[in-house]
Amino acid sequence: MDQLTILKIGGNILDNPTLLDNVLDAFSQSQKKKILIHGGGKIANVLMEQLGIEPKMADGRRITDERTLDIVTMVYAGLINKKIVAGLQKRGCEAIGLTGADANIIPAVRRPVKDIDYGFVGDVTPSDISTNTIISLIGMGLVPVCAPITHNGEGDLLNTNADTIASSIAIALAPYFQVNLVYCFEKNGVLLDPKDENSVIPRLNMHTFAEYKASGVISAGMIPKLDNAFQAISSGVNRVTICGPDAFRPQNPLGGTAIVSE
Amino acid sequence: MDQLTILKIGGNILDNPTLLDNVLDAFSQSQKKKILIHGGGKIANVLMEQLGIEPKMADGRRITDERTLDIVTMVYAGLINKKIVAGLQKRGCEAIGLTGADANIIPAVRRPVKDIDYGFVGDVTPSDISTNTIISLIGMGLVPVCAPITHNGEGDLLNTNADTIASSIAIALAPYFQVNLVYCFEKNGVLLDPKDENSVIPRLNMHTFAEYKASGVISAGMIPKLDNAFQAISSGVNRVTICGPDAFRPQNPLGGTAIVSE
Repeated sequence: MDQLTILKIGGNILDNPTLLDNVLDAFSQSQKKKILIHGGGKIANVLMEQLGIEPKMADGRRITDERTLDIVTMVYAGLINKKIVAGLQKRGCEAIGLTGADANIIPAVRRPVKDIDYGFVGDVTPSDISTNTIISLIGMGLVPVCAPITHNGEGDLLNTNADTIASSIAIALAPYFQVNLVYCFEKNGVLLDPKDENSVIPRLNMHTFAEYKASGVISAGMIPKLDNAFQAISSGVNRVTICGPDAFRPQNPLGGTAIVSE
Repeated sequence: MDQLTILKIGGNILDNPTLLDNVLDAFSQSQKKKILIHGGGKIANVLMEQLGIEPKMADGRRITDERTLDIVTMVYAGLINKKIVAGLQKRGCEAIGLTGADANIIPAVRRPVKDIDYGFVGDVTPSDISTNTIISLIGMGLVPVCAPITHNGEGDLLNTNADTIASSIAIALAPYFQVNLVYCFEKNGVLLDPKDENSVIPRLNMHTFAEYKASGVISAGMIPKLDNAFQAISSGVNRVTICGPDAFRPQNPLGGTAIVSE
């Protein structure tokens, strides 16, 4: 099986032009088949503030009403996605920007309302992903660049977590490629001490993850990211790594935290 | 040769949800191979106004500074493109939204500064278009939906006239398909009297176009649109029509103005 790298880059990298350039340099130099998935960053919030739209949050998660959906569609699928595509094309990488609506690659279901109505938020099931289309695009020598927007097939665009899109695509493509899923964010990996970039936990399995959660070492936004990572490694994805922008270079051994099944 | 319909829809249709729905209904029902190209509409201007950005114009054409480029990238490549894609997917049409940067389908050159610096505006040459990539995407059963944004291969996105993109793609694909290029806008065709929707000129050749221009019957924004149309018909495109949203229906004979070479 061919190797396939799926790189997810987070908001703090998108907000830092130097970090983003470094990551795009490294990504474009890799000769393997590859997919890039990007998150949102602060631009959507800045734009909402400029337009006088109050961000609505519940339990630390954004509620996506219709105006907010328009904003994130503009920023994620328009501005960020196309700047990354143009930046990769400049580097000789045949990037093609996509949302989940494009070629129906990532169908989603609008999240059902329980206690909270998250609005236009989409949940993705890996088995629904249009693997044939993605494989054909990759077979054409193209490099999909995915924005965290999906659709429900009824005409609605939906806001979807980029970490989840990354793990879902990785799981969907695991039967066809040796998938190397890399979550690249602003820290060097999963840290024992959030203030010490040298405290990277080199390997994390389900058991140690549960321990670190119980002791509070791993908390907040790191937990859903790791949930996605463990779902991937337990669903046939070959390798899952959480690392900083420096680790993702062809000349470096990949640092960061390796997510392992046991 | 297979038939290929290239439909360009203008801003006034994008700004009218009912007209847009009608056009998307008709477009999705056509069983031929097809490409949709859309313009901008008023949303970019509304957003610029809300953000306190003064639109800069010269000779009736927009000057695209860096902030304006960000706005049009968000609105054209993000909001409008993805809403059309989701709307077509809802209708069972396998739309894939693209800018010229995506898969490098439309490389452009930043317009050289003569009297006026138009800023981040891209000029397109039909022979530069990546016909192989577009043909492969169509061969996959996909329907490209193109936003009027291109790139220069050096990392810059560029604002490009949608009529020009439509004629350039039509010309580039003319050796491979029987291309039917349709410019669909808010009027019923090229009108003898702009106030009378029943005064459609049924056929227009270079000679009558020159006469109508000289007599002032055809003026203003209609001239560059017709220049694009005549460039297409004189460069191997099979059929070029300028018509209103009602004409573009499978059950209707295509009304509007036929652009003919002689």
